[in-house]
Amino acid sequence: MDMHVFDVFSIIGTIAFAMSGAFVAMEEEYDILGVVVLGLVTAFGGGIIRNVLIGVPVTTLWGQGDLIMLAMISVFVAFVLPLGLIQHWKKTEALFDAIGLSAFAIQGALYATQMNHPLSAVIVAAVLTGSGGGMVRDLLAGRKPLVLRDEIYAVWAMAAGVAIGLGVATKTWQLLTLFVIVIVFRMLSVLYKWRLPRRSLHAAQSSAASGKEVRSG
Amino acid sequence: MDMHVFDVFSIIGTIAFAMSGAFVAMEEEYDILGVVVLGLVTAFGGGIIRNVLIGVPVTTLWGQGDLIMLAMISVFVAFVLPLGLIQHWKKTEALFDAIGLSAFAIQGALYATQMNHPLSAVIVAAVLTGSGGGMVRDLLAGRKPLVLRDEIYAVWAMAAGVAIGLGVATKTWQLLTLFVIVIVFRMLSVLYKWRLPRRSLHAAQSSAASGKEVRSG
Amino acid sequence: MDMHVFDVFSIIGTIAFAMSGAFVAMEEEYDILGVVVLGLVTAFGGGIIRNVLIGVPVTTLWGQGDLIMLAMISVFVAFVLPLGLIQHWKKTEALFDAIGLSAFAIQGALYATQMNHPLSAVIVAAVLTGSGGGMVRDLLAGRKPLVLRDEIYAVWAMAAGVAIGLGVATKTWQLLTLFVIVIVFRMLSVLYKWRLPRRSLHAAQSSAASGKEVRSG
Repeated sequence: MDMHVFDVFSIIGTIAFAMSGAFVAMEEEYDILGVVVLGLVTAFGGGIIRNVLIGVPVTTLWGQGDLIMLAMISVFVAFVLPLGLIQHWKKTEALFDAIGLSAFAIQGALYATQMNHPLSAVIVAAVLTGSGGGMVRDLLAGRKPLVLRDEIYAVWAMAAGVAIGLGVATKTWQLLTLFVIVIVFRMLSVLYKWRLPRRSLHAAQSSAASGKEVRSG
Repeated sequence: MDMHVFDVFSIIGTIAFAMSGAFVAMEEEYDILGVVVLGLVTAFGGGIIRNVLIGVPVTTLWGQGDLIMLAMISVFVAFVLPLGLIQHWKKTEALFDAIGLSAFAIQGALYATQMNHPLSAVIVAAVLTGSGGGMVRDLLAGRKPLVLRDEIYAVWAMAAGVAIGLGVATKTWQLLTLFVIVIVFRMLSVLYKWRLPRRSLHAAQSSAASGKEVRSG
Repeated sequence: MDMHVFDVFSIIGTIAFAMSGAFVAMEEEYDILGVVVLGLVTAFGGGIIRNVLIGVPVTTLWGQGDLIMLAMISVFVAFVLPLGLIQHWKKTEALFDAIGLSAFAIQGALYATQMNHPLSAVIVAAVLTGSGGGMVRDLLAGRKPLVLRDEIYAVWAMAAGVAIGLGVATKTWQLLTLFVIVIVFRMLSVLYKWRLPRRSLHAAQSSAASGKEVRSG
């Protein structure tokens, strides 16, 4: 992997998170400044969390004037986009979030691999780096974070971590393919509402009360 | 700008955020320890976010015993303040929040300017640095962050960023004047409920459904 | 204090926060991945906040493959635990949270003491370090953070800070005793619902309206 690809993922992830923050802010009926702020906070919150997690000084963000301008332009584009184009906004939101997730998860996994960290660390780094921006956005918008909600989300970041940690994806074209695959699978799980088994403690309690064990799922 | 002014803004911002956290905690009916904790977390959460954003080691906070004592005293003062003085507590809350916002936004902008970062970076640094403490406070209190709510908020931090980034405010008295101006305008937007245009995706959806475009504002 | 004890507290705290995050996720009816993610985020969110606060590079986390595996195993154990064992899950949750609180608060206090910071800094470091993991967990689960809710919580972290800051607990066995004492007192305050006085601004307002002062508590 050359540094160039890493920068490409930074740019893609920043734009995607900026748009995703702007869409969520519009859905929550924020004013134009709320849209700008949530867009910027999502983009740079994600970047800040990524930098903290992979040991890059947070302050390097401020030197990237082009990236900041790009994020601002993305937010304004989201704000003035013809409404007809975003009528399926729930899926639009999910798409931009998926792009950001994929780009930042790959960056987290690449960093952890380059540092020769064990596979488990690569996977956790991919999940936390990829989902950080969306977590900040959802928390600030008063929503339950996507990564903790129903549809399969973190598993695709984990998959990216495994692919990179095991050395399956190392070259530029492999990383870009992985990037697209993660987005496609994330969107498939949104569109077809894939679910994982769950286990409820409430069921546990009521079953404990009635003296037998059940497992919901 | 000499370092002295920077420290003055640190002290003012820390006290203001500590009081603002304490008032919010009292409004939410927390016990005395909840008041102390939310006060301290708001003050130092703001300071931690500022330090992370401007590249100052977070650990420098712990060496500032005087600042920590000041924050603790501020919280206790807020807790024992005669109730008659804080009957207009919504405005009191907004005032202390505005002081913290102004002090930390100026610090963020000063730092980014000193590092010769581009204007866009100075503006974003001012917004994130200024609103960090309030975001942490509102999230922990289960509220929608002020910076994303109706009244004009982030725009004043942006204005401070522009003034400092363009070199309009550089001397100590200019910075202190800017500090007061930001507070005054923030409070004016609270008192007179200034609003910015907004754009709702719900309107978008219903209008898309009925086949025409509207833009709420 | 030798480094060995510090590592022991890291391991204990990480496992405890991982389990506590997993239990909260099950109570909130998350799917298996939500359980894994909230478990990992609670464990490593706590560790990240601790590292940021005490100046240890966050990236050292990724080198600790054993700790990450331990956290993952803890989460899976929590997921498959026989339901009969966790029917008193509210107390189980509180217990694991208390273990994490105690372990990380002691680490924060030890660090601040070793750096010769003043007592006030040791206390604040203990509170923020100890309660960081639980704050992240509760915010992501959409709950009001434990540290701000009714039962006495932060006071035990403060007590650990005082004991370590004043040099009462320095040797390994003293630290381990302190660790157990903090857990015991925290659980006693949960079981017996100990309360602290509170002061409501709503009461303030209504009393101000009726022209007299009252203080609820």
